[in-house]
Amino acid sequence: MDPASPLFLTLDLTGVFAFALNGALTAIRVVRLDVVGVVTLGMITALGGGIVRDVFIDDLPPATFSDWRYLAVAATGSLVAFLFGARLDRWVNPILVLDAAGLSLFAVSGALKTLEFGGGAAQAVILGAVTAVGGGTMRDVLIGRIPVVLRSELYAIPALGGALTLVVAIELGMAEVPAAVGGAVLCFLVRMLGVHLGLEAPAPPGIDRRT
Amino acid sequence: MDPASPLFLTLDLTGVFAFALNGALTAIRVVRLDVVGVVTLGMITALGGGIVRDVFIDDLPPATFSDWRYLAVAATGSLVAFLFGARLDRWVNPILVLDAAGLSLFAVSGALKTLEFGGGAAQAVILGAVTAVGGGTMRDVLIGRIPVVLRSELYAIPALGGALTLVVAIELGMAEVPAAVGGAVLCFLVRMLGVHLGLEAPAPPGIDRRT
Amino acid sequence: MDPASPLFLTLDLTGVFAFALNGALTAIRVVRLDVVGVVTLGMITALGGGIVRDVFIDDLPPATFSDWRYLAVAATGSLVAFLFGARLDRWVNPILVLDAAGLSLFAVSGALKTLEFGGGAAQAVILGAVTAVGGGTMRDVLIGRIPVVLRSELYAIPALGGALTLVVAIELGMAEVPAAVGGAVLCFLVRMLGVHLGLEAPAPPGIDRRT
Repeated sequence: MDPASPLFLTLDLTGVFAFALNGALTAIRVVRLDVVGVVTLGMITALGGGIVRDVFIDDLPPATFSDWRYLAVAATGSLVAFLFGARLDRWVNPILVLDAAGLSLFAVSGALKTLEFGGGAAQAVILGAVTAVGGGTMRDVLIGRIPVVLRSELYAIPALGGALTLVVAIELGMAEVPAAVGGAVLCFLVRMLGVHLGLEAPAPPGIDRRT
Repeated sequence: MDPASPLFLTLDLTGVFAFALNGALTAIRVVRLDVVGVVTLGMITALGGGIVRDVFIDDLPPATFSDWRYLAVAATGSLVAFLFGARLDRWVNPILVLDAAGLSLFAVSGALKTLEFGGGAAQAVILGAVTAVGGGTMRDVLIGRIPVVLRSELYAIPALGGALTLVVAIELGMAEVPAAVGGAVLCFLVRMLGVHLGLEAPAPPGIDRRT
Repeated sequence: MDPASPLFLTLDLTGVFAFALNGALTAIRVVRLDVVGVVTLGMITALGGGIVRDVFIDDLPPATFSDWRYLAVAATGSLVAFLFGARLDRWVNPILVLDAAGLSLFAVSGALKTLEFGGGAAQAVILGAVTAVGGGTMRDVLIGRIPVVLRSELYAIPALGGALTLVVAIELGMAEVPAAVGGAVLCFLVRMLGVHLGLEAPAPPGIDRRT
């Protein structure tokens, strides 16, 4: 598989789009930033995880800066959120669903790319999870929240599970497309289960669950 | 052009000096740190953007750690700010002017170095802006403020504009020195315009413009 | 010396273990996270500094992701802290002692690895200190505290001193083991001196020493 294979690109760019919407909506709803801040936070959320992954697997410069589609998709997603954010503004659900979608897509795309660059199975699982949680962690740090990866019991776990599913399925000889879809769907469902069970403590920025 | 050409080094080291003063003054005025904290924040502000740029263009170890002038200039700027900060302490202007100067110089030095390392025009513009906003973003995250790149409408935009001016001017055949000076001056003026128009919301640390 | 020499590995993995305990205890005591958050913060604190070092010296992917012992030791330390944290919970000392131990071990292991990868003496001192303070800085940023490297007068200084001691001793022809032990012990004693003299302002999260 080529790192720019249709499967990898579809997963990765869809993840970028989901995280761009999520980051931009977070900027609107939680921090009330203006358009430049909204687009900037959307793009960092969308591209942060993939940049960290590419630094770690030594694919430099990161694909973000060498393939125009990443910047284009991230900017488009952020602008769409800015233009239509007023309507979505009062619902917390779109933000959580988009975050879960980005998490799931990046867990499998990150694992796929790591395998492609010669990483072992364990590395692929770990780096898939790092890719998945990276952008949301930057988003939360930049707006002064304790990152969701620390606050939620079901954030790192489903990302690891999704990446593991993909890697094991490929090791067992399954084709890449069903392996990737299976891993992403598993991650998404477990993550949304956590959200619906209220395991996601909605910590307010600044004070959170601190003593 | 060699990455250590006089033009590049002049721009880059002057930017390091401006950001070192800025970061150290911020440590004194906003966070009231002692001398080690002041110098540390000054050096991270001064060197952070260039380190990120060098990681992305795969110039490792970053120039910061392989060329002693970077550490020397950053440490000198931070110490100067510590020694004379008591007088500058009550004015907000020096901090904003120095930040605008560092932003402008790094936007063009970052774009120049990216071109030199074989990056395309779009890459040079993006990485110039990333270099420019990187150090100030680290500074703000470390002291618990929402980064100015998210809070101000005219921070990322002038950095992109300055880098774009340089790249377009060079593509049109202009010599590097006037192209770099033109890009930096444009960025500086637009940034200061934003400051004077009050587009820069002076968000207090910790609570900022959050809901 | 091979980067995976017994001396380097012993220092580096012991540092990982100390920082894993420290980060996990911090998560329990300061932020009151659940098990996933405790283990995540423990692992980031334990592995963050070494990852930054490996990115800077271009040893990619970072050893963390290519040598299973790093993840195993970091996870074990974090889980141990989670299981026995209830007893340690009310003492602030274990957290500070473990942090000082990790700082000291990483200062010398980071300097050793930089020398091994062909870095000069000054580079080894600087990157040793960056390795030492990196994980704790990430820990503090993630939980919304101003990093200890900015708050304490004796945090960056002993790390630089420990790395310098190692480098000078090796340059003078001393064997690596006593040079490393000497550097680590010096760093640890100076750091603990700072803690006991109260130079460590125990800044509460969120408001710290800000104006």
